[in-house]
Amino acid sequence: MSSIIGGALKLSLFGQSHSPAIGCVLDGLPAGIPVDEEALAAFMARRAPGQRDTSTPRAEADAVRIVGGVAEGRTCGAPFAAVIENTNTRSRDYTELRRRPRPGHADFTAHERYGNWHDVAGGGHFSGRLTAPLCAAGGVALQALAGQGVRIAARILRLGADGSKAVDDALSPAAPGPVPQQAPDGALEALAANEAELGMAMVSHTAAERARELILEAADELDSIGGVIECVAWGMPAGVGDPIFDGIENRIARMAFGVPAVKGVEFGAGFAAAAMRGSEHNDPFAAGGTGPVPHTNHAGGILGGITTGAPVVWRAAVKPTASIGLSQHTVDLATGAEAPLTVRGRHDPCIVPRAVPVMEAVCALALLDALIEDGRFERPAPRPDCALTGLEGA
Amino acid sequence: MSSIIGGALKLSLFGQSHSPAIGCVLDGLPAGIPVDEEALAAFMARRAPGQRDTSTPRAEADAVRIVGGVAEGRTCGAPFAAVIENTNTRSRDYTELRRRPRPGHADFTAHERYGNWHDVAGGGHFSGRLTAPLCAAGGVALQALAGQGVRIAARILRLGADGSKAVDDALSPAAPGPVPQQAPDGALEALAANEAELGMAMVSHTAAERARELILEAADELDSIGGVIECVAWGMPAGVGDPIFDGIENRIARMAFGVPAVKGVEFGAGFAAAAMRGSEHNDPFAAGGTGPVPHTNHAGGILGGITTGAPVVWRAAVKPTASIGLSQHTVDLATGAEAPLTVRGRHDPCIVPRAVPVMEAVCALALLDALIEDGRFERPAPRPDCALTGLEGA
Amino acid sequence: MSSIIGGALKLSLFGQSHSPAIGCVLDGLPAGIPVDEEALAAFMARRAPGQRDTSTPRAEADAVRIVGGVAEGRTCGAPFAAVIENTNTRSRDYTELRRRPRPGHADFTAHERYGNWHDVAGGGHFSGRLTAPLCAAGGVALQALAGQGVRIAARILRLGADGSKAVDDALSPAAPGPVPQQAPDGALEALAANEAELGMAMVSHTAAERARELILEAADELDSIGGVIECVAWGMPAGVGDPIFDGIENRIARMAFGVPAVKGVEFGAGFAAAAMRGSEHNDPFAAGGTGPVPHTNHAGGILGGITTGAPVVWRAAVKPTASIGLSQHTVDLATGAEAPLTVRGRHDPCIVPRAVPVMEAVCALALLDALIEDGRFERPAPRPDCALTGLEGA
Amino acid sequence: MSSIIGGALKLSLFGQSHSPAIGCVLDGLPAGIPVDEEALAAFMARRAPGQRDTSTPRAEADAVRIVGGVAEGRTCGAPFAAVIENTNTRSRDYTELRRRPRPGHADFTAHERYGNWHDVAGGGHFSGRLTAPLCAAGGVALQALAGQGVRIAARILRLGADGSKAVDDALSPAAPGPVPQQAPDGALEALAANEAELGMAMVSHTAAERARELILEAADELDSIGGVIECVAWGMPAGVGDPIFDGIENRIARMAFGVPAVKGVEFGAGFAAAAMRGSEHNDPFAAGGTGPVPHTNHAGGILGGITTGAPVVWRAAVKPTASIGLSQHTVDLATGAEAPLTVRGRHDPCIVPRAVPVMEAVCALALLDALIEDGRFERPAPRPDCALTGLEGA
Repeated sequence: MSSIIGGALKLSLFGQSHSPAIGCVLDGLPAGIPVDEEALAAFMARRAPGQRDTSTPRAEADAVRIVGGVAEGRTCGAPFAAVIENTNTRSRDYTELRRRPRPGHADFTAHERYGNWHDVAGGGHFSGRLTAPLCAAGGVALQALAGQGVRIAARILRLGADGSKAVDDALSPAAPGPVPQQAPDGALEALAANEAELGMAMVSHTAAERARELILEAADELDSIGGVIECVAWGMPAGVGDPIFDGIENRIARMAFGVPAVKGVEFGAGFAAAAMRGSEHNDPFAAGGTGPVPHTNHAGGILGGITTGAPVVWRAAVKPTASIGLSQHTVDLATGAEAPLTVRGRHDPCIVPRAVPVMEAVCALALLDALIEDGRFERPAPRPDCALTGLEGA
Repeated sequence: MSSIIGGALKLSLFGQSHSPAIGCVLDGLPAGIPVDEEALAAFMARRAPGQRDTSTPRAEADAVRIVGGVAEGRTCGAPFAAVIENTNTRSRDYTELRRRPRPGHADFTAHERYGNWHDVAGGGHFSGRLTAPLCAAGGVALQALAGQGVRIAARILRLGADGSKAVDDALSPAAPGPVPQQAPDGALEALAANEAELGMAMVSHTAAERARELILEAADELDSIGGVIECVAWGMPAGVGDPIFDGIENRIARMAFGVPAVKGVEFGAGFAAAAMRGSEHNDPFAAGGTGPVPHTNHAGGILGGITTGAPVVWRAAVKPTASIGLSQHTVDLATGAEAPLTVRGRHDPCIVPRAVPVMEAVCALALLDALIEDGRFERPAPRPDCALTGLEGA
Repeated sequence: MSSIIGGALKLSLFGQSHSPAIGCVLDGLPAGIPVDEEALAAFMARRAPGQRDTSTPRAEADAVRIVGGVAEGRTCGAPFAAVIENTNTRSRDYTELRRRPRPGHADFTAHERYGNWHDVAGGGHFSGRLTAPLCAAGGVALQALAGQGVRIAARILRLGADGSKAVDDALSPAAPGPVPQQAPDGALEALAANEAELGMAMVSHTAAERARELILEAADELDSIGGVIECVAWGMPAGVGDPIFDGIENRIARMAFGVPAVKGVEFGAGFAAAAMRGSEHNDPFAAGGTGPVPHTNHAGGILGGITTGAPVVWRAAVKPTASIGLSQHTVDLATGAEAPLTVRGRHDPCIVPRAVPVMEAVCALALLDALIEDGRFERPAPRPDCALTGLEGA
Repeated sequence: MSSIIGGALKLSLFGQSHSPAIGCVLDGLPAGIPVDEEALAAFMARRAPGQRDTSTPRAEADAVRIVGGVAEGRTCGAPFAAVIENTNTRSRDYTELRRRPRPGHADFTAHERYGNWHDVAGGGHFSGRLTAPLCAAGGVALQALAGQGVRIAARILRLGADGSKAVDDALSPAAPGPVPQQAPDGALEALAANEAELGMAMVSHTAAERARELILEAADELDSIGGVIECVAWGMPAGVGDPIFDGIENRIARMAFGVPAVKGVEFGAGFAAAAMRGSEHNDPFAAGGTGPVPHTNHAGGILGGITTGAPVVWRAAVKPTASIGLSQHTVDLATGAEAPLTVRGRHDPCIVPRAVPVMEAVCALALLDALIEDGRFERPAPRPDCALTGLEGA
């Protein structure tokens, strides 16, 4: 195992940073879901490299070629399969990469795991480039969920050191007061606008500007920074998910840790919950229109692994990019001697901005899987022509 | 779920008969296995359509484009991924196919399963064309097994009606007398020669000629015939497989029933065992060079789901091709009235000859999965350059 | 892996022939299904040993102790878990079993697989005794399916040599003429009556008597016989199952080969299909009340892995019991020399009669899994008290 | 799905808080591993309830009855299966629990998920009681890992509010300076001694005393507190784990979120990494005895999902116990009206101390699964008697 995940909805990722192509297979999508290729391309563009001064200069169109699973603009029941060509790979001698493992990268661990037969070019299968097909699959999942009334948005919560003021506190997940069933007015629009203008998905324009500066500063110093991304899903019905090992938390966490550089995942109040009293952390139930709704949301919309009907809220800690221009220490695997290393190649000084849509993809895939598995996904109406069905299927 | 299978080694198939491409992902291959692309192409050619008067005229090159998992001619630990373009699809109006489900085909069941949103063109994801990527993955598995001393060969055991003499009895699986650890001298060569000359993988040239005639006869009569394929794996070590649900039989059967038209699977004496006495069916153990070996092989090389060291022997019953030129009865799904149907399109009057390599692929994938899972696959030596390993990994 | 199977509905079997207990966990059952413990006990009794002169004298009550998953007589969403005590184990020295592997048994293969650390007593985890917890789980699945209008019955189709006349042809699966949506009048009652009276689940009383005689004859001669079991499921809606690897055939076959002694599985016309013409094998569609229904049923109710609405029909070949009283040849694993072996212990001269409910269990578990996975299982109405639901869950 | 997890090593948990019994099945353990039942009982005792004034008064012996998978003191290849009786359940009327869902608990979400058919007694399958069979399985995994040189220890890192001084900083995971391959001298002994004396697994005696006081204070106030547990595994070889979805992080996180009350999981520097520079976070490689070793351990022993050879370090945030004695607000599901709720029953004012061995169990199960899957688990030598093996298996 390694690059396949899921229950009712299984995702398989393939390809390497410099292989001919990368891609995904998403098996288990209900048939009849409209697939909007333009919207998918727009979603892919949010993650695509080479478009801003805050990201790697490696330009890839990341054009998604759907080769299976869609017929006449709808999912057809066969696995959704998509291929993305690797067009902008640089041919060169990778001997040094094989010899001198980069600190913070998987070069050394892949060497140990695969008997030195791993593909070293561009990080191989460990490259963040594999998040492109993850987004292709996730983009389709987001469209499927939208049809069920589920809306997902991620944003940069914090960037760089805590005191840096690149903190976006507009959507505070565990805020006191009644849980809003939708994002505050204008927040998602501001988020999208700031991402489009500054490449920083933050609600606060000031914070987005500061975030951008911090990245450029780190880049100037040949260094890198990390951050925290928060993701929220509105509209999930109560009662989806499973106890013990297949709860919504387990599902999202298992997938989120598949995104390179993620080192922590928390839900609702998360690590802050550890410092709270039960009387403070417990979300009391209030009477909603037809039944109980949590009044606050320290639980992040999940109790016992199952959705409460409140927004699902989670955060991922993203470490600073491992590839930096500063000289570092490593060991030469041909000689055993310590050796200095200066990483060449094209890298992001901060991966956080481009990881925002990736977290939306992760969240959508995990939630859609649970919805389908639990029989809660509302299937599209049958295609109207030639729609006579059998006795038994009626 | 639907098109993903396996334990340590997971296979995902994607694409439809007339989608832009079809392909496979094979996740879990050990790193360092040499991949011979020419040998793979030769294996693919045995299954490829459009090459003989006994097969469909749809000509497809079935060129395997490896897009991931191989670096410098060896598996690199990343999933093996391959794409095969669909080049020879015929654009036309498929409305009739949607309206009038073909007897013996999945048109009606797909209609019920997918709310009529299935891809009807060429049978969609249900097409035998999906056995091409199955063979691409299986071809790599066969190469991996060859490096472990495992040799697999399938052949046509019977074709058409029982009395037709198109019966190949040269490799009788449950024959009395000591179990040969290898195929009889010359048998595999004869098999290959007859397949190359006549398109019929049979050891007996006479039987192969008769088989070819039977197919052409059926084609002349706008009808189709089926047959039985036998597959043998020599060289599997004793002690591979698992009791209950993951035995060698379970693994092969589950995958073999994934090949369209397979309606029965049996191991060793199979259904004939039901008419035997225990004293006759039990394979006594004899003293081999260093330990016990079964003297006969009614068990087909498997006891309790685990290999005995004798050849693994199994058979698949292949039904006659459902697409025939004769007029048939169906129901019009737009009107509910019964309606005659004459299937157009390009079809094989007998799928058995082209299914022979498919069964080898199935057998190789199932056995390789078990070998890896049980820790019995001997991993390739590490790549010799830069091969210093860590303290802990030593 | 080894003893866990399933998709939406996962079954885990545990225990050995002489361990303190055996049992099962069935994870994924919808909540609210009534569990009738008396009916379950009656189902278990059909498989239980020590009750007739045609079966082993080892008497086990096979009382099912439900320890989880049921509350107030209904499934509660937690995994169904049941434990069956092993009460009638005979303490003795098993050294000889470890030394001298029995032909036709898993003694030798387990020795190779587990480095000689396997539990040899009574066949350990390979024992047919593990079909008791399989029936406990299957019995619950049968009850769940009954609530959906699905009725399953297996019977002995043939016993002993083909010419023995112990052939039950009353429910011929691929008979010409319209497919009956239910079993012929009186057939299931006759089946139950003959099983109750003679221990032989056959519709024909004459065949049942002959079957009983054949078993007693074999027992007298210290030998054993096998047979073929046919299983039919009526009432499955059309459109359940998946293409390629998770079709109804794949699911049933993978589980059926988990039953010790099964060496072949076929669906519909099965191996006989290989000798048919397409024009003969294809089941034409006829106009049913509201849509198409197959007129004949050579397909066994399955096309492209998906149900057609016709009865699901399949057969399993059961080999003759490996444990026989006659002297056999084996190899002494302590010395390497060939050695005679006379199997002691208590054994069935024919396992077929007791395997009949096991096949029903297998069929029920596989079909229920597919029904749930495809979202076609109609969930029980919510418990009526305190049934207010949340806004989002409404 | 819900209560089954794992790849090569699959764990299934069953039972409810007040069902007759709870238990586990662990499928895939290599054969021949010694199982020390006394050591297992001692491990279970660390988690068992009713033993201290800081825990629930519900006294359960938590005696592990092994019913399968062990023969003559060693694993035998069959699934390890264990049953723990529920002895101290209190019969009473649970109608109120069904009517008034407790804040912070799964009562309401289970109600939505299972159509109100869930087992409400004691929290049913959602109860922390299910961590007892998780520890039974984990205890065996810990023993199996010990035989491979892997040592795992968890401890309370922080309890209550941050400023409370119940902070144990003796084993700081991401400390500067060379990574120790073993725990500091005396640390594990102090940990065990403080846990035995005070029920608080902390290296610092002062912190342990303060932790105990904080819990008693919260109990006095009818409230509860949470905390953070840190878990470290020493001795894992480099090169174990997989990229993308089956990395060590994914595996541990998916299982850790299966423990009730866990709301966050982080590895190495974790969330703190988000505020670091790459030059600070990257662990440079130093020359070890025979190869490179990370000099620091911000990565927590994992790069690209694969072990580096440095200790695996991770933390779980545990929320304050949801069951508190203070009056809370909820909604009556029979009337829809808001209603006060005072939780009765027996509860821990802080679950953190008893969750410490649970995290060790989680860590052991996840690491053992990866070791086996990657073929890196060194199998026990074959049992010496009757050890002759077959030709092919040699």
